[in-house]
Amino acid sequence: MGKINLKDKLSMFSEHWSPKVIAEMNDYQFKLVKIQGDFVWHNHTDTDEVFIVIEGEMKIEFENETVELGEGDMYVVPKGVEHKPSAERECKVLLVEPRDVVNTGNTEGDLTASNDVWI
Amino acid sequence: MGKINLKDKLSMFSEHWSPKVIAEMNDYQFKLVKIQGDFVWHNHTDTDEVFIVIEGEMKIEFENETVELGEGDMYVVPKGVEHKPSAERECKVLLVEPRDVVNTGNTEGDLTASNDVWI
Repeated sequence: MGKINLKDKLSMFSEHWSPKVIAEMNDYQFKLVKIQGDFVWHNHTDTDEVFIVIEGEMKIEFENETVELGEGDMYVVPKGVEHKPSAERECKVLLVEPRDVVNTGNTEGDLTASNDVWI
Repeated sequence: MGKINLKDKLSMFSEHWSPKVIAEMNDYQFKLVKIQGDFVWHNHTDTDEVFIVIEGEMKIEFENETVELGEGDMYVVPKGVEHKPSAERECKVLLVEPRDVVNTGNTEGDLTASNDVWI
């Protein structure tokens, strides 16, 4: 596998809430996702989840607080913690999580995406 | 743990080849490092290693090729593969690797850094 340019990869898709795998390290995956609007409340029972904002602004709501993230911010959502990502305008995010993680965690629904689509 | 801004964290140290942990996800760590000059040839026997260039340009030499990385490029060095990072001018890099990884891998020496220094 050669070098991977984040912006090049981001230019290859446009749909929201549909993470694309760009790299694997051991049994972890790096995924790019474009988000806009509200996601669903969910948690990941077995794993922490990392968000790194590449471009734009997003929020992550928790039960008792809301975190606002801008370009160059990262956040680790601890395993088992309910959260709801959202973005008023399109925001581009790098996710890091184990290979088998489903985007909607414990809350399967319309926004559940395939979890191993590579670009 | 709150949100982590990569540039803020990068402003907190100046030494080269001395990775600083900024976040943990499960048993993996995210580390920022500033590099300049030549590192040593080494490999990590048990793990892949991810480089994401935040600012600047760097090279990773392998036995049969040299990869040049710029801002927004990432690269996964497979486990066990000999490599030598270098940068002509200072380059700022985000590393992702398991918690116990030592920067010089199998080649302990002057450039071996503490592997669990947080900022």
